[in-house]
Amino acid sequence: MPPRAAILVTGDEILRGRIQERNAGILARSLEGHGVLVSRIEMVGDGLDAIGGALTRLLGDGHDILCVSGGLGPTHDDLTMEAVGRATGRPLAIDPRALELVSARSMSLSGDPGILAALREKQATLPVGSVLLPPPGTAPGCIVRHGATTIVVLPGPPWELETMWEAALSEPLLAEVVARAPAAHERILRIHAVPESTLVAATAGLDPAVWDRLTVGICAREGELEVTVRAARKDEWAADLLEEGIAAGVGDALFSRDGSTIDDVVAAALVAAGQTVAVAESCTGGGLGARLTARPGSSAYVLGGVISYSDEVKVGVLGVDAEVIRRHGAVSPECAEQMARGARRLLGADWALAITGIAGPGGGSDEKPVGLVHLALAGPGGVRHLAQRRGGDREAIRARAVAGALHLLRQGLVEAAGG
Amino acid sequence: MPPRAAILVTGDEILRGRIQERNAGILARSLEGHGVLVSRIEMVGDGLDAIGGALTRLLGDGHDILCVSGGLGPTHDDLTMEAVGRATGRPLAIDPRALELVSARSMSLSGDPGILAALREKQATLPVGSVLLPPPGTAPGCIVRHGATTIVVLPGPPWELETMWEAALSEPLLAEVVARAPAAHERILRIHAVPESTLVAATAGLDPAVWDRLTVGICAREGELEVTVRAARKDEWAADLLEEGIAAGVGDALFSRDGSTIDDVVAAALVAAGQTVAVAESCTGGGLGARLTARPGSSAYVLGGVISYSDEVKVGVLGVDAEVIRRHGAVSPECAEQMARGARRLLGADWALAITGIAGPGGGSDEKPVGLVHLALAGPGGVRHLAQRRGGDREAIRARAVAGALHLLRQGLVEAAGG
Repeated sequence: MPPRAAILVTGDEILRGRIQERNAGILARSLEGHGVLVSRIEMVGDGLDAIGGALTRLLGDGHDILCVSGGLGPTHDDLTMEAVGRATGRPLAIDPRALELVSARSMSLSGDPGILAALREKQATLPVGSVLLPPPGTAPGCIVRHGATTIVVLPGPPWELETMWEAALSEPLLAEVVARAPAAHERILRIHAVPESTLVAATAGLDPAVWDRLTVGICAREGELEVTVRAARKDEWAADLLEEGIAAGVGDALFSRDGSTIDDVVAAALVAAGQTVAVAESCTGGGLGARLTARPGSSAYVLGGVISYSDEVKVGVLGVDAEVIRRHGAVSPECAEQMARGARRLLGADWALAITGIAGPGGGSDEKPVGLVHLALAGPGGVRHLAQRRGGDREAIRARAVAGALHLLRQGLVEAAGG
Repeated sequence: MPPRAAILVTGDEILRGRIQERNAGILARSLEGHGVLVSRIEMVGDGLDAIGGALTRLLGDGHDILCVSGGLGPTHDDLTMEAVGRATGRPLAIDPRALELVSARSMSLSGDPGILAALREKQATLPVGSVLLPPPGTAPGCIVRHGATTIVVLPGPPWELETMWEAALSEPLLAEVVARAPAAHERILRIHAVPESTLVAATAGLDPAVWDRLTVGICAREGELEVTVRAARKDEWAADLLEEGIAAGVGDALFSRDGSTIDDVVAAALVAAGQTVAVAESCTGGGLGARLTARPGSSAYVLGGVISYSDEVKVGVLGVDAEVIRRHGAVSPECAEQMARGARRLLGADWALAITGIAGPGGGSDEKPVGLVHLALAGPGGVRHLAQRRGGDREAIRARAVAGALHLLRQGLVEAAGG
């Protein structure tokens, strides 16, 4: 059995939906990568009773690792350390080394010296006997063993949490538990633009013995299906058969067999070809550019682009023919193609992707409903166009348009490479 | 006492960190807006035991509302309805109206008729005695009363969940519970670029009686502090005193007293002034444009912009002087100012925002470390510049740069309006 973990995220702002919570996902992804099974995530408010109740529930459920995030700030509503002290029966005390680190990191703050000193001491107070985790920001964390559970207390800001967690993984108290995880035998297949029912049909003919050996999860998002296949090492043959069945059933739509995302695939193909890409965005307003450049090192192949949200910019900057917009509208295959050509020419890129569509909630018509998006790719061999129509809200429609553009680029790159 | 709610999100992909979970936040925000207190969020995997265990825990804790999301798909690992049936002691049966709706929505699928029929029946199977919630996508949901708890079962895709939840709020079984919530007496103050310790100092002199009457929460993110102040109607005077204390202590940095975000404030100011904005983005790659256009109706004031990720685009499209880049670098006040001027001229906008910085993780130096961002705003009265330096990872640095640009635009708009 792999070690089991639980994640507890604290903060009234989360229960009130004020922030997009990210910490649970960061920890879950890391634990998963180490072969640790996350069996539960809980989120509670800032109160001592709320945090204490959750700690008691999760400690009682026999988890090997319990990650706790948030509530390590300097103010009176930051009570996580106190709750951990109570739940584990450990008194709290100022940790001298923690105080030193907190003081060094908050030197630039100005204000009443007495108040500042009290805030620093509050942040340096840890359960007795815990292992200090130095602060990437201003708040230290700690590791405490309680019975069979190793508790890791981490700060709330996502980058602080992520940095401290990476450091915590090297601490013997935690590393020893993580090391008990078996090597993961898992493969992830990613498929583009195939409905789940097609996948069911494609694999319906497989020997039931194949299914008995596998744990299969299917997750649909942004027009992709992600299929996770787990098997014991001796049962890898069953995973091979399933993968081959899927490949035979869906063909080229299976764009990744090694866990890489469409972003990974496109970036690798551009780097391999030594080529560059530019964007021309209307309804996505820069979202495609932001996604392409989210990756470190993307300056090797992303030149930039034009956000042509208004028609004047489409005509004046990208050189779209005003007559085309008058006749076909800005949301049309013709306009998308001219946007792509214009961006490719203006930026001198090998490839240019254009997106123009109706993201809603207003602006739709019977002929051009909300969710209709025209994509175009201009490349060395000419221009190709793709119309896409998706349900969902403005955010979902824009995300689907960006994902659709990445897949269009991938197809262009594959064909240009003769694949 | 306001009604209490819990949220249960199901899905292996969440425990494995494969997707950025959004449903809990959508539901929490809506419940909060209706005055319902969310006291707990749980996330568990797809297994029948995992979902059943969570339902038992949450039903046992006396919540008035229990929202459950995910696991309503057609495949064998979608087990939420079965778990709800077991936890509430209700058998499952095909709901004829649900079957009709599911069939109408999946007509376009092709495949083995027997398999498709089975998938449809699976999705139309609900706990007996539940109220059907029609599917925005393909999966119906339902409302079931169990003891004092109203359980609302919703699909996993965020836009489906949001659409169905809005419809569920009109169903008498749920509306009756939500109506018990007291009118909310809450105000939200937003403050830009002030450390939490300054806020503590600014309010340290207030009469302790003020604090006794209030529940105050402080949340820091993207360079802002969000202060939530709750009071009973008769204690509004205490909230007024706190607000005045904060206003006196932080001055103009208090940019919102009515809950509006920086995005709201900037959009309203542009609309009121009848002015337009353009962007010139380097390290954010389109993220500022995407954020400005995330809002429906933004075409009234966003013209678009240039993503000048490469220096060639800064020079060739925006007209930045190549000598400026050679002498000062692309991450410099001079380059940011020329980018802003160039975008304003090229797009014919009233205002143009430029961002150039080092988002990392590579590319930093002692002189220009990772996290250094230069912002510039070109407007009717000339150009202003702001240097920003933030810690954090690439994503955090880019998000902070975008937020910083919005605040710079707000300051320009306030001063131009003579405010």
